[in-house]
Amino acid sequence: MSFILGSKSSKRIIVLCTTIAILFILLLTTLYSGTIRQSPCHLLSAVSIPSLSLNLPGSKNNHLFTNFNHITSSANHAQRNKEKILVLTPLKDASPYLDQYFKLLDETSYPNHLISLAFLVSDSSDNTLESLQSHINDIQSRWNYRHRFESVRIFKKDFDFDLPSSRRHEYEMQPLRRSILARSRNWLLSAALKSDTSWVAWIDIDVVEYPTSIFQDLMRADADVVVPNCLLKRDDQAFWAYDKNNWQETDESKRIQEGLDEDFVLLEGYYEFPTYRYLMVDMPTDVDKDYKVELDGVGATFTLVKAHVHREGANFPAFTYQHQVETEGFAKMAKAMGFSVYGLPGYLIYHIQNH
Amino acid sequence: MSFILGSKSSKRIIVLCTTIAILFILLLTTLYSGTIRQSPCHLLSAVSIPSLSLNLPGSKNNHLFTNFNHITSSANHAQRNKEKILVLTPLKDASPYLDQYFKLLDETSYPNHLISLAFLVSDSSDNTLESLQSHINDIQSRWNYRHRFESVRIFKKDFDFDLPSSRRHEYEMQPLRRSILARSRNWLLSAALKSDTSWVAWIDIDVVEYPTSIFQDLMRADADVVVPNCLLKRDDQAFWAYDKNNWQETDESKRIQEGLDEDFVLLEGYYEFPTYRYLMVDMPTDVDKDYKVELDGVGATFTLVKAHVHREGANFPAFTYQHQVETEGFAKMAKAMGFSVYGLPGYLIYHIQNH
Repeated sequence: MSFILGSKSSKRIIVLCTTIAILFILLLTTLYSGTIRQSPCHLLSAVSIPSLSLNLPGSKNNHLFTNFNHITSSANHAQRNKEKILVLTPLKDASPYLDQYFKLLDETSYPNHLISLAFLVSDSSDNTLESLQSHINDIQSRWNYRHRFESVRIFKKDFDFDLPSSRRHEYEMQPLRRSILARSRNWLLSAALKSDTSWVAWIDIDVVEYPTSIFQDLMRADADVVVPNCLLKRDDQAFWAYDKNNWQETDESKRIQEGLDEDFVLLEGYYEFPTYRYLMVDMPTDVDKDYKVELDGVGATFTLVKAHVHREGANFPAFTYQHQVETEGFAKMAKAMGFSVYGLPGYLIYHIQNH
Repeated sequence: MSFILGSKSSKRIIVLCTTIAILFILLLTTLYSGTIRQSPCHLLSAVSIPSLSLNLPGSKNNHLFTNFNHITSSANHAQRNKEKILVLTPLKDASPYLDQYFKLLDETSYPNHLISLAFLVSDSSDNTLESLQSHINDIQSRWNYRHRFESVRIFKKDFDFDLPSSRRHEYEMQPLRRSILARSRNWLLSAALKSDTSWVAWIDIDVVEYPTSIFQDLMRADADVVVPNCLLKRDDQAFWAYDKNNWQETDESKRIQEGLDEDFVLLEGYYEFPTYRYLMVDMPTDVDKDYKVELDGVGATFTLVKAHVHREGANFPAFTYQHQVETEGFAKMAKAMGFSVYGLPGYLIYHIQNH
């Protein structure tokens, strides 16, 4: 078979062929150069990616080296400084709350692309894990990537702890229950904290109402740890305390602690052992939203923490520390390390009644 | 100009052109498929890379999801299970020790590719950072990648704490000095812990002699926290205690603690305040290398920790916990959380004399 080409088509083929070959070589070259090798990963990843390439500090692409001296947590310029928030939420049988949880977070005025989310799912018997993944899929597959969160990660860790809901709020069960909660919070924190996190926000899955400006509002308090005032969401809009773990010690509460066994855990809201502390939910709420009071114990329905507090070691004691465990123990630890802990009695958010 | 091609060369060009085009398209396709997108990153990265692609758990490539239920720390099958060790070392003005540190680590019989290293450099006035990077460059650029460590990372965080070396060992300076050390250890831990870490080894930069099988030997103790017996390296080979922070409480030591102010920090090896504890360096050392004793306090010249201990929240208190800070406080915390803490009095390692 003979095959004859005119000079025009021959030229076209040669030009096409050469172009493709050049493109091919260019692509191969860029693929194996250090610069590009890191950037596609960086787009995908939720963490800084250390690599084997080594440069002296100062080089932008040097993921081997992280300089923590540059990380800021600023009261008024967080967004301008592109400070990253890590939202942490431990979950257990939480399917019914996911819709509202993501709706609220998505509506906050702090840019989503500066917010990462991480969840620890433990000991769940409902479809929490699958439902969570489906919610994340919906929210992160949106066309406009600026509306997506910077990253969302799920960790699973079972503690084989299953308290029947009828006994969940029994006084005697609390120290054990709270120490398991502490372990799961610490597990989540140690797995999820990233090198560029400036702020850590602990948010309960069943918080159902808060202002869209909550992140900026809490940052403005410029505290190492800060909490709003969390009430119970009721149909009749009545004032009903929810988070009783936000409190100040009083002379009376300090006095009764003197005689206590070192291992005795104090708990708020139980008639079995009154603590005589001054709870934030009992403070006047008709004050300015920015009005802040120093606290000695905090809950974690919605708690904003400057990341260095956790990095220096303040976490949620699963053991008795100054008669506290978990979130109140965290406040006690943070204060013992010299960090500031504040609450905003006039800043109201709402939690669902759980059983 | 005319241009004529014979049928043979025409065919060759078309075949070549088609082949290149197909290769090009194939390359583009694989580049943008999820599978390949993750794998080049995975090779480079030192961490699991979360991505935006979402699958249900069970999928191997799903980096969004981490199941911690599968992580093991096994006494005798760590290597077979490919369990990962994370070696953590805080550094300050440490240039002179780097050669020996890397030499020893490189010679351990636990495979390098299952070991990651992470350093926290703080408040250094010598060239620690540059020297460290040059050592890492040498060790990680070796031809045989199986000899390389899985990853090496450096974190920098200054605490603006500079105690003149003449005052470094003064009694009154210890609680403050140790609390800064605690903060730097926690900072390193929270930055470096990876999702697949099974064991955390804390190794002082100036430990200068230990057996190559040390990882397997310590794992064999099957303790949540375990330490060898650390002596001072001397030219005359005399027995000279170094790590006095490995100890057991005694009846006498418990008794004197009863009357102490809650904030008082106890320290070993200072004539100003004898503690009456039983130090591991004072125990008989002519016992089997595997012989283990329960401890109440540990140092961290060489300390192997099952990773879940840190993940559940036991770290290095920068505040006073049961009259301790830092490493001894860590042992106290771990025990309060129900973890086992052991020492091997017959297993000797050596530390340089520092000033």
